Amino acid sequence: METLLRLLAGLGGARAAGEGPVSEPGSSPPALGIGMDSCVIPLRHGGLSLVQTTDFFYPLVEDPYMMGRIACANVLSDLYAMGITECDNMLMLLSVSQKMTDEEREKIMPLIIKGFRDAAEDGGTSVTGGQTVMNPWIIVGGVATVVCQPNEFIMPDNAVPGDVLVLTKPLGTQVAVTAHQWLDNPERWNKIKLVVSKEDVELAYQEAMFSMAMLNRTAASLMHTFNAHAATDITGFGILGHAQNLARQQRHEVSFVIHNLPIIAKMAAVSKACGNRSGLLQGTSPETSGGLLICLPREQAARFCAEIKSPKHGEGHQAWIIGIVEKGNQTARIIDKPRIIEGPAKLSAAQGGW
Amino acid sequence: METLLRLLAGLGGARAAGEGPVSEPGSSPPALGIGMDSCVIPLRHGGLSLVQTTDFFYPLVEDPYMMGRIACANVLSDLYAMGITECDNMLMLLSVSQKMTDEEREKIMPLIIKGFRDAAEDGGTSVTGGQTVMNPWIIVGGVATVVCQPNEFIMPDNAVPGDVLVLTKPLGTQVAVTAHQWLDNPERWNKIKLVVSKEDVELAYQEAMFSMAMLNRTAASLMHTFNAHAATDITGFGILGHAQNLARQQRHEVSFVIHNLPIIAKMAAVSKACGNRSGLLQGTSPETSGGLLICLPREQAARFCAEIKSPKHGEGHQAWIIGIVEKGNQTARIIDKPRIIEGPAKLSAAQGGW
Repeated sequence: METLLRLLAGLGGARAAGEGPVSEPGSSPPALGIGMDSCVIPLRHGGLSLVQTTDFFYPLVEDPYMMGRIACANVLSDLYAMGITECDNMLMLLSVSQKMTDEEREKIMPLIIKGFRDAAEDGGTSVTGGQTVMNPWIIVGGVATVVCQPNEFIMPDNAVPGDVLVLTKPLGTQVAVTAHQWLDNPERWNKIKLVVSKEDVELAYQEAMFSMAMLNRTAASLMHTFNAHAATDITGFGILGHAQNLARQQRHEVSFVIHNLPIIAKMAAVSKACGNRSGLLQGTSPETSGGLLICLPREQAARFCAEIKSPKHGEGHQAWIIGIVEKGNQTARIIDKPRIIEGPAKLSAAQGGW
Repeated sequence: METLLRLLAGLGGARAAGEGPVSEPGSSPPALGIGMDSCVIPLRHGGLSLVQTTDFFYPLVEDPYMMGRIACANVLSDLYAMGITECDNMLMLLSVSQKMTDEEREKIMPLIIKGFRDAAEDGGTSVTGGQTVMNPWIIVGGVATVVCQPNEFIMPDNAVPGDVLVLTKPLGTQVAVTAHQWLDNPERWNKIKLVVSKEDVELAYQEAMFSMAMLNRTAASLMHTFNAHAATDITGFGILGHAQNLARQQRHEVSFVIHNLPIIAKMAAVSKACGNRSGLLQGTSPETSGGLLICLPREQAARFCAEIKSPKHGEGHQAWIIGIVEKGNQTARIIDKPRIIEGPAKLSAAQGGW
């Protein structure tokens, strides 16, 4: 939930209501709300807050069932970024393409809906309504809403110097999806065929798909266990864009420095072969349903990364320490030559991640 | 919020949680949820319910500011149909057309957003977030959410024989919008020019626009004052379609019979001149942001219609008694030759209604 916020901001006055941060002497008042992943609305009823978010976009994988799962994971991720693990209700937003035949529509749309609903069920919630229209393009998205007590969510504004930055999914989903499309485009494929095999690209695509479909719910739950100070999820602005947004929201005088970039295997090479135009190594490549970027106390970060891999949380979770929080002026940057962390070259698609 | 419900229903199991109706001996259990205007979710917190709805569609009037207002009124209307007068939060859903130039985009989209926000403000709520994408067509819509105590909403399932049906906006919005488009299409215009003047069509279009932009909030409030038994709002399925949906949801053995059709001036004649293909006189012409159809105790209906016109509720409100509730089998119909109630031929557009 981000693009509209900028449009609204342009009109002046769009701010998520919520627990307004206390601005510190010498710092400008942080624009909490603009750029936040979810909006937080104090309710008329005893200390409760309404937290909700919406997201919708276009299919980017070929499998309609997985597309439904990804869309749902992407919507819920905005709640998870605030450490919220429950969702009271979901609505689904859909458009059916006019270009589809009746047969295609009847085959594909129920699979998208089933994927969305199954992911919602995995998140402990359900879809009770929504809206569908006809449109030139397919649209898939939704709305996630929860009513919370104050201890159920973590406002993303409390990072302090000395904290460590942790990321819970690898980067490179967009690059993997694009490279996969190039398999059918000889001219484009020629640009990257010296650095990757078709099998590499298939594997990266599978990994991206399962990574995007994975819920950030475990990460949200562990934010409480390990006393997270702030978090956001990585989507359209890339790791650097979202790190910058998060830095701007902080109450303390901090800046974020990213040293390591976990990237889906071979996608860094693909990006380089294309002259880095994707922005992957600069942290600006868009991601879909990416991981959480979490500010954790230094002594908790390694424990967080160990715990999330525990089999008790299901397969496929991983997390990396990617940077630090310094004293600074609400900015974020990636160091000159960040360390690229690539996953193992071989992984089981069925495993759903690294 | 309706089309998706049918898609979800097709997959089995999509139901709004809520206060399940008690089915009576001999009647099939009503599918409360499917076809309801809003979903009602019991919360984990002391007796509260989450009520929410979403709607989005394509522009149908030329004035972007009014289009924003209409989209907002249309979303809120699903809450108002349940007698809910407050809304805790709105999200806005937008797509910007790729075919717009930068200049068009920068001129038009802020006006749509302003209209939406102004209508939200009139409804005592505000827009705190949303999502925007690029798309071949412009999309405008939103999400309305409220957390309610049980006495704040009226479940739409309690109509009894002897009740009276009241409608709070005239029908014919779609016909008026279409006729207005035909002003620029000589071939189409020839079909209707014998029954309407250009001025008639301009006036009908203005009236439709202001009617669609009007909030059903006053009607929602008066539902409590006059002890309404059930209500729905009139949108894409036309008056008959929504009356049938509402009839199916009733706990008692009832059917709805509609005798009168309030219609925007001259639009009945336009519809007849086109061979009744619009469905306006059959009650199947789609409406956008239509009125509430309310089941009221007989002794309250006339008082409701008088009260809504009171200047203390602002200008432009009106309501008509259009039919009755009989003992029956959860169906709705329009009598053979319904009485057409046309508004005064001249009305001030600034007044925003009849």
